Amino acid sequence: MAVKTGKDYIERLKKNKPKCYILGKLEENPFEHPFFKPAIAATAMAHDAAHLPEYEELLTAKSHLTGEKIHRFTNIYQNSNEIIQKIKLNRALSHICPPCNVKCIGNDSMNAIYPTVYEIDQGAGTDYFKRFCKVVERVQKEDLVCSAGITDVKGDRSLRPSQQPDPDLYLRVVKRTSDGIDVRGAKAHQTGAMVSDLTFIAPTTTLTKEDKDYAVMFVVPPYAPGITHIYGRCLGDERRLEEGGTMDLGIQDYGVHRTTLMVFDDVFIPKEHVFMDGEWEYSRPLVTYFSTIHKLSSACCKAGIFDVIIGAAATIAEYKGLEKSYHINDKIATMMYLAESIYAEAIGAAVDSFKTPAGTPMPSIMLSNVCKLTLTKHPYEMCRMMTDIAGGLFRTQPSEKDWQNPEERPMIEKYLQMKKGVPVENIMRINRLIEYFMFGTASIEDLGHLSSGAIETSQLWIKAVGNIPYKKKLAQKLAGIKEEQVTEPKKLKVAKG
Amino acid sequence: MAVKTGKDYIERLKKNKPKCYILGKLEENPFEHPFFKPAIAATAMAHDAAHLPEYEELLTAKSHLTGEKIHRFTNIYQNSNEIIQKIKLNRALSHICPPCNVKCIGNDSMNAIYPTVYEIDQGAGTDYFKRFCKVVERVQKEDLVCSAGITDVKGDRSLRPSQQPDPDLYLRVVKRTSDGIDVRGAKAHQTGAMVSDLTFIAPTTTLTKEDKDYAVMFVVPPYAPGITHIYGRCLGDERRLEEGGTMDLGIQDYGVHRTTLMVFDDVFIPKEHVFMDGEWEYSRPLVTYFSTIHKLSSACCKAGIFDVIIGAAATIAEYKGLEKSYHINDKIATMMYLAESIYAEAIGAAVDSFKTPAGTPMPSIMLSNVCKLTLTKHPYEMCRMMTDIAGGLFRTQPSEKDWQNPEERPMIEKYLQMKKGVPVENIMRINRLIEYFMFGTASIEDLGHLSSGAIETSQLWIKAVGNIPYKKKLAQKLAGIKEEQVTEPKKLKVAKG
Amino acid sequence: MAVKTGKDYIERLKKNKPKCYILGKLEENPFEHPFFKPAIAATAMAHDAAHLPEYEELLTAKSHLTGEKIHRFTNIYQNSNEIIQKIKLNRALSHICPPCNVKCIGNDSMNAIYPTVYEIDQGAGTDYFKRFCKVVERVQKEDLVCSAGITDVKGDRSLRPSQQPDPDLYLRVVKRTSDGIDVRGAKAHQTGAMVSDLTFIAPTTTLTKEDKDYAVMFVVPPYAPGITHIYGRCLGDERRLEEGGTMDLGIQDYGVHRTTLMVFDDVFIPKEHVFMDGEWEYSRPLVTYFSTIHKLSSACCKAGIFDVIIGAAATIAEYKGLEKSYHINDKIATMMYLAESIYAEAIGAAVDSFKTPAGTPMPSIMLSNVCKLTLTKHPYEMCRMMTDIAGGLFRTQPSEKDWQNPEERPMIEKYLQMKKGVPVENIMRINRLIEYFMFGTASIEDLGHLSSGAIETSQLWIKAVGNIPYKKKLAQKLAGIKEEQVTEPKKLKVAKG
Amino acid sequence: MAVKTGKDYIERLKKNKPKCYILGKLEENPFEHPFFKPAIAATAMAHDAAHLPEYEELLTAKSHLTGEKIHRFTNIYQNSNEIIQKIKLNRALSHICPPCNVKCIGNDSMNAIYPTVYEIDQGAGTDYFKRFCKVVERVQKEDLVCSAGITDVKGDRSLRPSQQPDPDLYLRVVKRTSDGIDVRGAKAHQTGAMVSDLTFIAPTTTLTKEDKDYAVMFVVPPYAPGITHIYGRCLGDERRLEEGGTMDLGIQDYGVHRTTLMVFDDVFIPKEHVFMDGEWEYSRPLVTYFSTIHKLSSACCKAGIFDVIIGAAATIAEYKGLEKSYHINDKIATMMYLAESIYAEAIGAAVDSFKTPAGTPMPSIMLSNVCKLTLTKHPYEMCRMMTDIAGGLFRTQPSEKDWQNPEERPMIEKYLQMKKGVPVENIMRINRLIEYFMFGTASIEDLGHLSSGAIETSQLWIKAVGNIPYKKKLAQKLAGIKEEQVTEPKKLKVAKG
Repeated sequence: MAVKTGKDYIERLKKNKPKCYILGKLEENPFEHPFFKPAIAATAMAHDAAHLPEYEELLTAKSHLTGEKIHRFTNIYQNSNEIIQKIKLNRALSHICPPCNVKCIGNDSMNAIYPTVYEIDQGAGTDYFKRFCKVVERVQKEDLVCSAGITDVKGDRSLRPSQQPDPDLYLRVVKRTSDGIDVRGAKAHQTGAMVSDLTFIAPTTTLTKEDKDYAVMFVVPPYAPGITHIYGRCLGDERRLEEGGTMDLGIQDYGVHRTTLMVFDDVFIPKEHVFMDGEWEYSRPLVTYFSTIHKLSSACCKAGIFDVIIGAAATIAEYKGLEKSYHINDKIATMMYLAESIYAEAIGAAVDSFKTPAGTPMPSIMLSNVCKLTLTKHPYEMCRMMTDIAGGLFRTQPSEKDWQNPEERPMIEKYLQMKKGVPVENIMRINRLIEYFMFGTASIEDLGHLSSGAIETSQLWIKAVGNIPYKKKLAQKLAGIKEEQVTEPKKLKVAKG
Repeated sequence: MAVKTGKDYIERLKKNKPKCYILGKLEENPFEHPFFKPAIAATAMAHDAAHLPEYEELLTAKSHLTGEKIHRFTNIYQNSNEIIQKIKLNRALSHICPPCNVKCIGNDSMNAIYPTVYEIDQGAGTDYFKRFCKVVERVQKEDLVCSAGITDVKGDRSLRPSQQPDPDLYLRVVKRTSDGIDVRGAKAHQTGAMVSDLTFIAPTTTLTKEDKDYAVMFVVPPYAPGITHIYGRCLGDERRLEEGGTMDLGIQDYGVHRTTLMVFDDVFIPKEHVFMDGEWEYSRPLVTYFSTIHKLSSACCKAGIFDVIIGAAATIAEYKGLEKSYHINDKIATMMYLAESIYAEAIGAAVDSFKTPAGTPMPSIMLSNVCKLTLTKHPYEMCRMMTDIAGGLFRTQPSEKDWQNPEERPMIEKYLQMKKGVPVENIMRINRLIEYFMFGTASIEDLGHLSSGAIETSQLWIKAVGNIPYKKKLAQKLAGIKEEQVTEPKKLKVAKG
Repeated sequence: MAVKTGKDYIERLKKNKPKCYILGKLEENPFEHPFFKPAIAATAMAHDAAHLPEYEELLTAKSHLTGEKIHRFTNIYQNSNEIIQKIKLNRALSHICPPCNVKCIGNDSMNAIYPTVYEIDQGAGTDYFKRFCKVVERVQKEDLVCSAGITDVKGDRSLRPSQQPDPDLYLRVVKRTSDGIDVRGAKAHQTGAMVSDLTFIAPTTTLTKEDKDYAVMFVVPPYAPGITHIYGRCLGDERRLEEGGTMDLGIQDYGVHRTTLMVFDDVFIPKEHVFMDGEWEYSRPLVTYFSTIHKLSSACCKAGIFDVIIGAAATIAEYKGLEKSYHINDKIATMMYLAESIYAEAIGAAVDSFKTPAGTPMPSIMLSNVCKLTLTKHPYEMCRMMTDIAGGLFRTQPSEKDWQNPEERPMIEKYLQMKKGVPVENIMRINRLIEYFMFGTASIEDLGHLSSGAIETSQLWIKAVGNIPYKKKLAQKLAGIKEEQVTEPKKLKVAKG
Repeated sequence: MAVKTGKDYIERLKKNKPKCYILGKLEENPFEHPFFKPAIAATAMAHDAAHLPEYEELLTAKSHLTGEKIHRFTNIYQNSNEIIQKIKLNRALSHICPPCNVKCIGNDSMNAIYPTVYEIDQGAGTDYFKRFCKVVERVQKEDLVCSAGITDVKGDRSLRPSQQPDPDLYLRVVKRTSDGIDVRGAKAHQTGAMVSDLTFIAPTTTLTKEDKDYAVMFVVPPYAPGITHIYGRCLGDERRLEEGGTMDLGIQDYGVHRTTLMVFDDVFIPKEHVFMDGEWEYSRPLVTYFSTIHKLSSACCKAGIFDVIIGAAATIAEYKGLEKSYHINDKIATMMYLAESIYAEAIGAAVDSFKTPAGTPMPSIMLSNVCKLTLTKHPYEMCRMMTDIAGGLFRTQPSEKDWQNPEERPMIEKYLQMKKGVPVENIMRINRLIEYFMFGTASIEDLGHLSSGAIETSQLWIKAVGNIPYKKKLAQKLAGIKEEQVTEPKKLKVAKG
């Protein structure tokens, strides 16, 4: 069957040997390292959940290529309802294996590349679409975990790729043969590449003619020769290296999946895995499609994390004896507002989707950027409310080792107690969960704000698709202004959004 | 045909003689009064638009009672997609005949009463549903304009209806006969009642057993004997009374529809028009349904008004020569964000609708309140951006009469000029449109904030439907907290939302 | 004595005959017109209050020129404490004669011109300082009311004064003789010029060499030959034209003082009243000084208005029976926060004042702009809180004429009643006060946001004086970054702020 | 001389042996532990700076007891200007040894206890004032570092101290002898107690008669027998335990000073060090005074940290080549606004100080709470701006060990480069500084929000001192409301603020 289990995934994964440095050391068995095990567990859970009756409908879909039942994260959407299901799925998985299931972003990249290669073929007479469908079919059949390498390291941000003093600061083709291409460069912030079966690589920005060599799109296993991963150190990671304790981790089983810098040192990509090579004009739809889709995934997975944080806030409030406090409950209601508005905007964006030339649905560009802007604001307000409810203890609490020390334990048990009957261990655990999501490896501010782009980018998108001339016409007509001063809005290449 | 024209509506209307005081004077022909003509024109346009090819699909629907093509504002929704169409329609009409088309709120009340009476019949063995369907059929067939009288005047807000020193501060039944009932009380803020064919009256709050006489629901023509309307004076209205000018009105043809206080002095309602009489338990679903539905209408009609304001902002910026200013365009993008997020959240609420016992779809209670909360914030930010772009002139501009005075005109034409070639008349007109939406009869702050309830009400709803226990469970499980401390969430009578 | 009474002021005023158009009509006796009487009454009160024991200290000062006791609004500040007293005075007067006492802005302009002319004399060898001191002495001695004409009409905002197609869109010198100069142009948004003894005219923006003729500064009586005032129509003004009622006015005695467009048609200014003529380099300190000082006055007068609004909110809450509601009181606390933070920031700016070359204190440029930015945000939040507390009645209330009509009165008295014992007249009055400050002639959004410049201007000032290089140095040192990459901050001509 | 050096302080400190557990281990030499060394260095710097010419004036004062020159952090304020100097000093020290100089809070507690004990003596006939002055004199003479133990652990937050199931959850007197008292309990979030000479202990909340035993105030050396400190683990601390690197620390020399839980196990306090024992009525002024003063210190020290963060933002923007970007500079201006408004409001609070019965100045209660509320909001907006400018690298950057590894270094040097010429080491360092202030040990959100109380507390204060009745009177008078409905405001015991 095309829907695999977590066990299938882990067994498959263990056959790979990606080259990875962690804190300055080349790791022999990175998949055994405490920094990667939680990410693997979360990804495994994203498979196992598809076999649970209450999640099955949400997590599976029907392949438009084979008609087979597949994992929804390997699906190419056929209508806007499937986009809605996908983003609801993201929220649901955040409830059980946060902060990241890895598998979702591969799906986003597939759904961005699919219509793009269709358009390249139409415009440039290439045959990428067939190649790409073959890969999709394999991903669906074997239920592969895919990550997406989009963000280049970028060097001087005021210069285009081809203008950089070092030409490798955006990933590019350095050699072409009849069999394939050699690529060089690096992709930053790689959440999940290390624990994936495949990585889809695509440009991070729209390109010009001069940037031709940077217009490259392909799929590659993350353990291909020439690829090196360097783990990005993050606050709180070190606690995973300690022995014999779990309380200070925030989330024990899942929870760490920090990113790597993924370096490509002249990596060979065989022809059949290349989906763009020089067709720079199509960087625009690719970037548009990917950022539009991914904004919604990223938003809804945060809405799910927000739900967990709201639960933590309600828990600590109860532990403190404040479950009936007016202002506490008001803040919790505000937190729910913050979570639900992100979710509602994502749904709205999915509903107002438009059709790409390939016939697939694409969320509203306007509304996905609106949703993203909300996502750059609400996490901060969440943290503010949470901090007010939780107070300072989640930042000044003794460690588990103190609690384990029989000399200190009586003091801790005595002075950390709250409402009668609540075990101090519970208090300490919920505080660490709060610390984890507020400032730790999965800070919602950082996750929410940065995933899928900066504020400015969304402002620019909104300006581009907002059809100001039409709105001016409306206002002028109502104001009784007679002469025709309005020119028609410029058509956006990517169709209306 | 069941979809009437504006002309049909106006002719029908003129046969009625509602009793109405305006600025202390009993008006013989209120429909000729400059305060009501614009509202009539807007309502007429809401009919005429249904006959325009570009709006036809949006403005018409198929009756589930008769199968006939009807105006969408007379439709009982059969699925969530019909709710989406309804709220898109609200946005569209705000583009052409703002700020209010009158007809929409009647539709909201019908869609709230319909499932409520179904539930009363189920629970109390009454036969309201049949009665009500008959009225719906007539409304659909004759394409009647209906308003909704919900908000009571309320007296002392800390007391329930039956506790008020004066028992009439919430509308109530004062007499019951075999033919019908007599009602007394007043409904406040009646937007559109004066220019409607019928008004649906329903309770404004959930009631207790003691409030039994206040549990009353019926339909009545606004010109029924015993009903008096008192016009509510509003800033800017007076300009409508001036002769020979239009520039200072903001919007000439539409635009004023200010509200009345609608007083019921022992008005007789025949039995077949009564849909609740004493079944106080059902005030809860009624209030829930009405506020849920109406929040979305009210949100989307404001999104449409925001579009017009954005157009006005872009226009005045261009007139000033600032169309390329970075910060101006940034503010306009922010304004679009503010409009679109309201709209997206309304769509999200419609998508996540649930089914009432009567089988009709009802928007998500959570998300409609989320949308409403956004609507209590964004108008203020809109005004802030608008004021910054427009500067002070829309508040200090000479009047049209000054402009008409040949002695003053050269000075005004000289010193109000902006970018070369822009007629000063246009500048003055767009400024008055801005004034109109910012502070005038259709201030978006006032309209956005107050329609369908206060901040606090939405906070309470969110607390009620937020399923905190489930969220606590999620957090505690992830934090590794073992014991079962969570009780199941209380079931909301109105089903999940 | 140098501190005059309101009666003195009014008698002096009545001798003048400024040329003024109101709603298209040339007014013979504008000072008798209901649009100007309230402003005159407020200005009179600003004099009378100086004779009340509880205000005397705040409203009077000692002249540094003559040593005499003078009205504080004619004072040239000698130390930062006098600035603090001045802004406290603004808050206090807003409590008793809001929204504007007219006299304050003349004081701001005097304190900006004083150091500027000193600097011109130092740099350009002119003798403006002596001339100007003579005028100051007269103003102090006769306790004159002065207004300030700063804002030009500006035409195309993307062009400098000398680049405008029509050269008169910024006020300029059109002729120079040995006796004086002729000036042409217009000053916009003139609050109070009509009811002043004198108007100080100065440039609205920093000028370049090409703009030389626009570098002009002088004092002029507002009734000088060649000057025309055109009244700016504003929402709610019309109610002042009605006979026999006061309830719908919001504030009866004070309250309207709307602005005029002040047109200069080749007005002759005698030499001894000219304080700048061509010294364009000094437009920079003038603009800096005026905007810095005036931002604080404008902020504190709004803080005082906020206090009144808070009182109105608490009153209507009490009338409704909600004086013990948690969320209402929380909102009132938030409103106090909004008022007090503006005030506190103004005080902070005054404390951190710097010394001009003339030896006078000048508020911190950074902090006055910080205060101003707060002032562009808090009025909106005030209105949001107020609307939530007041509900819709202040926008839909019947008119006083309805209340006066014996047929309607019983209905109004019955259905507008709130908490037992509160007269309906009181309810109607407080609602009109709320309407007045929210949307009427003295909308706090408009007043707060627009007085003394736009958001962008303050952002630019903050960038200019923020000393980023020093802050970079601090961060780099703490981060352990070694090499010296930082250049010294550019010295601002206007000294540190 | 009474102003000591850092060396003096460290030598004195080393003679003490406080009992301290760190991560479950009893530390023999806690002052050598990497977790405490930075705090000691910062405190030392707070002394050394007093000897630098550019800081001398700010850091020293004249003792009102002895007339001697003393460190300003040992001063009892004599006028509001000295409060202003104190809070400016806090901002200045945040520039050079952030995030905490330890010494400041002792000064805040001294200035709160001083007027309180004066009032107790007046009211209760005790002689605490003399005792306390003796301690002050010693602190001034020896320039001691003092911390303040205020926050109790609090248990069930819905119960008062004497209602707790375990009576020790607020610190209390358990035994009284003629020589002194024995105390039991714990003080939470102890920033700096470990590295201080003395700790002032005082109640955290206002008390009732039943809470008499909790009304206790004294001074104690933190190494007194019976006192145990338990270090609170915090994100990022572990990096201090690594050998041979500094880059990942954020700030190398200063920067960690995390808190301890300070447990009192029947600690004996000699009579002459006790300043309150049972006078529960005076918990109110104490709490009022301490929270009022400390809010300002805490605010201004954060303003100083904000300055450093602004410098870091400008640095990373320059490194990225974005120093000329409009939107980046706009965000930096906004960050300056956020910092300066906090500072300005603190100054405003100091200016509006009132006199305690002891004759000392006390900042405005209203304005210090206003300042505090701003401090609970602006850090979040700071982080939002910072994240947008910095992008994700500060969260995903490889560790220093990776950079040190010769195999990885070329990759890191190649792919982390930004603008030509900027060393990658600098980029990595500034990113770690950003991480440190955003999420690490000195997260500004946590620091800003939690120091000196929650949002709700400040809302309550504002309600208490806001003089609503006076404001109602103003509004009613202006609205023309006649009858006297207003009662006089209740006098606050702590005098006007």
